[in-house]
Amino acid sequence: IQKEVLQNQSHKRFNILTGEWILVSPHRTKRPWQGQQEKQPGADRPSYDESCYLCPGNTRASGDVNPEYTDTYAFTNDFAALQKESDPFVINDGLLRAESEQGTCRVICFSPDHSKSLADMETGDIVKVVTLWQEEYRHLGQQKDIRYVQIFENKGAVMGCSNPHPHGQIWAQSSIPNEVIKKDRSQKEYYQRNQKSLLSDYIIQEISNKERLVYENEHFVILIPFWAVWPFETMILPKKHQSHIGRLSGSEKTAYADAIRFITATYDKLFDCSFPYSAGIHQAPTDGKDYDHWHWHMSFYPPLLRSATVKKFMVGYEMFAMPQRDITAESAAQRLRELA
Amino acid sequence: IQKEVLQNQSHKRFNILTGEWILVSPHRTKRPWQGQQEKQPGADRPSYDESCYLCPGNTRASGDVNPEYTDTYAFTNDFAALQKESDPFVINDGLLRAESEQGTCRVICFSPDHSKSLADMETGDIVKVVTLWQEEYRHLGQQKDIRYVQIFENKGAVMGCSNPHPHGQIWAQSSIPNEVIKKDRSQKEYYQRNQKSLLSDYIIQEISNKERLVYENEHFVILIPFWAVWPFETMILPKKHQSHIGRLSGSEKTAYADAIRFITATYDKLFDCSFPYSAGIHQAPTDGKDYDHWHWHMSFYPPLLRSATVKKFMVGYEMFAMPQRDITAESAAQRLRELA
Ligand SMILES: O=P(O)(O)O[C@H]1O[C@H](CO)[C@@H](O)[C@H](O)[C@H]1O
Ligand SMILES: O=P(O)(O)O[C@H]1O[C@H](CO)[C@@H](O)[C@H](O)[C@H]1O
Repeated sequence: IQKEVLQNQSHKRFNILTGEWILVSPHRTKRPWQGQQEKQPGADRPSYDESCYLCPGNTRASGDVNPEYTDTYAFTNDFAALQKESDPFVINDGLLRAESEQGTCRVICFSPDHSKSLADMETGDIVKVVTLWQEEYRHLGQQKDIRYVQIFENKGAVMGCSNPHPHGQIWAQSSIPNEVIKKDRSQKEYYQRNQKSLLSDYIIQEISNKERLVYENEHFVILIPFWAVWPFETMILPKKHQSHIGRLSGSEKTAYADAIRFITATYDKLFDCSFPYSAGIHQAPTDGKDYDHWHWHMSFYPPLLRSATVKKFMVGYEMFAMPQRDITAESAAQRLRELA
Repeated sequence: IQKEVLQNQSHKRFNILTGEWILVSPHRTKRPWQGQQEKQPGADRPSYDESCYLCPGNTRASGDVNPEYTDTYAFTNDFAALQKESDPFVINDGLLRAESEQGTCRVICFSPDHSKSLADMETGDIVKVVTLWQEEYRHLGQQKDIRYVQIFENKGAVMGCSNPHPHGQIWAQSSIPNEVIKKDRSQKEYYQRNQKSLLSDYIIQEISNKERLVYENEHFVILIPFWAVWPFETMILPKKHQSHIGRLSGSEKTAYADAIRFITATYDKLFDCSFPYSAGIHQAPTDGKDYDHWHWHMSFYPPLLRSATVKKFMVGYEMFAMPQRDITAESAAQRLRELA
């Protein structure tokens, strides 16, 4: 009976990581759509584009020249949202509160090949990306005023990506951001009470339940979390309780790369297009405190809902009240499993 | 010195209503934009469109026929995300938590004229919209299982609006949504400590400071909050401490309608287009408890950043870490003031 009400009645689900609720309206998929259609991403791209500021050997807007890199390449963003040199300040002026924020923004090229995306790279090449993420996490995290290292990728023009060259970003900063604070609180509470990570127990429950499971290998699972917000949102989780990606062994890195390859390629099959998303890794802050309670994970937030051109809009109600979704996590997981 | 650092250095600002921080990168506006361009909304629309399901006399997808309404018109959404009849349930299954959510979704037509928007309606006609909002808030709020009434408008295709006919929505539901809970907590705390509403004191500070003030009449101010997230985000605030729109007197309604007219028309001038946004009213929940600490307000979240076709993307970093903006609240307020 429980399964049935969740597929038929409007309800809310609790996000155990953030402590927030999301609204689910499973009956609403029948709604006709006369609204905005997104542009289809241009089909084939060349392996090299002389106007691309990320291709090897090209000159960027700053005048810097990219090396003739053959695997991955990382550099500091020429238009970084966070600056390292700024003077610290605190403003407490009546009801106005502000604080300086130090940090740095890095661009991470995944491949020298302009035509690729993670979805069509080899596992071995994705391992190189993972290794670079590890190095950046370690190196940035060691810096004096860096308390959090946010690794992410915006893929596709509809996700605000201005360059189709396969790349992600890292923003590392002096304070711990909102979303991470929420997840830190829930994981810490659970760990102190149960001496186990929250996500270890969650993985066990999802593996036995199977409904929301999309993929499994020796070291990782991919699932649609019970509280997913985006239509085809997924999460890659290490089965072993690890607080950050720096702890990955060689074989775990390969298994992680396999999982990334699987989900990005499956996404591309779903609507037969280069599937847009924002992906990000949440892991232990780097302020030197104890974060054993953290269980790192990577989330994919893809906007497409019905086809390559119809996305879910998080507007109005979602901005003022709470996130809302139409298709359930369970039916989305089934569709992804069927494509595999 | 304080003003200067806020216009030049990356920093974070505190939202006194939600208790969350936002990242400001004032130096970042120089960044070139090669990413997605939005479609310009089609220019002139006819006053009546026979294919529009909101025009007077037309038949909707459900088969229902709209009356020949001459001012405003409200009806229950044919594809409502919230249902009234569903059976209540609570699921607590290990780490899975869900609860039924009852409610109703209403569509609020602002005008019979398909070609209009709030920006080009007369004050007197906007007063009729405000009166309808009051009636709906009161009527829905009195229903047994309705604890919150969210009034909002999605304007423009880029904000997920699928019909250009001037209209808004109301989603009324059995639980109090995330955003409202946050604002409830901050306002209650302040009210208990100071015996004054948080926003009364904030308005006093902003009126004397003037930097973020955009408009003022006898009963209302419009300002860009210090912690604004969207590039040209604004807030309409009643000067008098009122917990919900039901408390508005006749002359206050006219002053409110004037403020709505002012800000929507000013937005249209900014990039010379029908300016898209999501707008919403946050006010006292309707569960019968004491909400004297609430000071209602209306917020506009418009996505456009640089022109009619270049918007701000809240993706990647913003989804995983915290909201980020480029232009400061102060420079945005100045631009809006200059257009007036
Ligand atoms: O109800 P509409 O206008 O069809 O739909 C629009 O507003 C809703 C409420 O903000 C959103 O859930 C939808 O994603 C959006 O497209
Ligand atoms: O840095 P980019 O790729 O130019 O910019 C993109 O990602 C950033 C981080 O998520 C966002 O702040 C921008 O709105 C988005 O367009």
